[in-house]
Amino acid sequence: MTSTDHPRGVLAPVVTPFTDDLAPDAGRLVRHCRWLLDQDVGLAVFGTNSEANSLSVAEKIELLDALVEAGLPPSRLMPGTGCCAFPDTVELTRRAMRHRCAGVLMLPPFYYKNVTDDGLFASYAEVIERVGDARLRIYLYHIPQVSQVPITLLLIERLLARYPGTIAGIKDSSGDFANTRAMLERFQPQGFDVFAGSESFLLATLQGGGAGCISAVANVNAAAIARLAREWQRPDARAQQDAVDRVRAAFIRFPMPAALKTVIAHVANDDAWKRMRPPLVALTAEQRTQLVDSLTTLDFAMPGLAEPTRESVRA
Amino acid sequence: MTSTDHPRGVLAPVVTPFTDDLAPDAGRLVRHCRWLLDQDVGLAVFGTNSEANSLSVAEKIELLDALVEAGLPPSRLMPGTGCCAFPDTVELTRRAMRHRCAGVLMLPPFYYKNVTDDGLFASYAEVIERVGDARLRIYLYHIPQVSQVPITLLLIERLLARYPGTIAGIKDSSGDFANTRAMLERFQPQGFDVFAGSESFLLATLQGGGAGCISAVANVNAAAIARLAREWQRPDARAQQDAVDRVRAAFIRFPMPAALKTVIAHVANDDAWKRMRPPLVALTAEQRTQLVDSLTTLDFAMPGLAEPTRESVRA
Repeated sequence: MTSTDHPRGVLAPVVTPFTDDLAPDAGRLVRHCRWLLDQDVGLAVFGTNSEANSLSVAEKIELLDALVEAGLPPSRLMPGTGCCAFPDTVELTRRAMRHRCAGVLMLPPFYYKNVTDDGLFASYAEVIERVGDARLRIYLYHIPQVSQVPITLLLIERLLARYPGTIAGIKDSSGDFANTRAMLERFQPQGFDVFAGSESFLLATLQGGGAGCISAVANVNAAAIARLAREWQRPDARAQQDAVDRVRAAFIRFPMPAALKTVIAHVANDDAWKRMRPPLVALTAEQRTQLVDSLTTLDFAMPGLAEPTRESVRA
Repeated sequence: MTSTDHPRGVLAPVVTPFTDDLAPDAGRLVRHCRWLLDQDVGLAVFGTNSEANSLSVAEKIELLDALVEAGLPPSRLMPGTGCCAFPDTVELTRRAMRHRCAGVLMLPPFYYKNVTDDGLFASYAEVIERVGDARLRIYLYHIPQVSQVPITLLLIERLLARYPGTIAGIKDSSGDFANTRAMLERFQPQGFDVFAGSESFLLATLQGGGAGCISAVANVNAAAIARLAREWQRPDARAQQDAVDRVRAAFIRFPMPAALKTVIAHVANDDAWKRMRPPLVALTAEQRTQLVDSLTTLDFAMPGLAEPTRESVRA
């Protein structure tokens, strides 16, 4: 975080642990959130890699309440609240506002495809008007390869013109830095905070005046990514970027949220972390070995938990 | 309906009317359902064209309760219950079972993409095990162009092998009749009821031994489509198919649910029917005129409401 009140730097879409009955496990989630904060990583709970869209609204509300009750600072929380049905989005967003979260990360409604910018504008407007809170800060969530509903530059322009204080920024998970750059050039000067959707673009985003990144791999490679966000103007920033890129490369060979949980389970020596909610599935034993082996050859550690070793994953 | 207890023939994904505050309008929905039943069309409420994925679970439960309380026969109800999060799917499905609905139409979880058949099998299994009711009849919902999560023949085979009484059939909205034919050949003989996803394939589906169709346009061209389903073995069946195809052609030039509501609003002389929930939007005045004009040149009527006339739409 910088001197402003607004989220900056690195946030993680915090992975969601489950009990053996596949219920959300608030205790383990709180512990992982605390560890992330210790690494200087903010909490974008209920993101894509949180399996948030496999959770009901009631489950998300219960988890959010638990996080705040556990004393996690709302100023570091940016829960995902965008659902298909606007009443759900309104309910979750209101709860986030009641807890004074720093902002919310809001998917567009994602079931209907080929919808118009008019329809998406109306969707966001409906939520903003119904929440009716001047403190609301919405970070748009552009992840077209999953949502299949892109947030265009024209839509951002219209939303910013109508709701300048409320439309606070974006997470650009398109993987297309030309798009991120266009947002940095057109909207960041208006105070619209651009977050890259992965740490691959962290240095470039910060050099372009952006706010940081919201990255899945920050769940595990937290300290190194957060350090790059702090030290991006130092001479070794490119080397730091290269190092976090190498760690990312080990993860993206596998389905991401399962890979993240596998490594947390391994490092924390806690198999409960491996559980996934359908339709996502855990890594196979072979994938698990491949992933952990590849990490042992890299500059990767999760200080405060334990060091992954080749021996323990094979045990 | 035929002599069996199972849904056959034509069902409509019933369009959902909204009040001026965009709340679901149970009164108008009940009236439209009654009209559909009068035309011999069953009620696949909460489908894609019902804007069901723009409704919260609580809203769907309230509507379903209202339909049953209004005396609509549960034997003609096949509510859509498939959500992204299995607790939501379980809750809706349990409600449908409590009301003794004929079956449920179940989308796969549709946020996460490129999921495995293992993950989709686990998703359906989780719901079936948690609902835990031997009377449950699930109709799978294959609409890959919208859900982006296809239901493969291999997945059907696995589900049928594990849950033979419960996996009751499918709505194939792929628009690919080769796929429908493969399902008819491989699974219909096991009592797995194949419904075409539009009336375009109604005759071919019935000729292939299938159960019928679940079609958006049955919301408006109800009588003609239902007649074809009854009379498909008569000599004029091909001519009937051609006639319903011509009406369909008038609709598919426009976004479907908005087009359906436009025509109902027009015929019933009730502008409230035009309202759409974002992200979907109503037709423009120009589109409305084009659509209604094109229908006046066709063999199209909604008996029991009124006849559309060129004059009234321009009034």
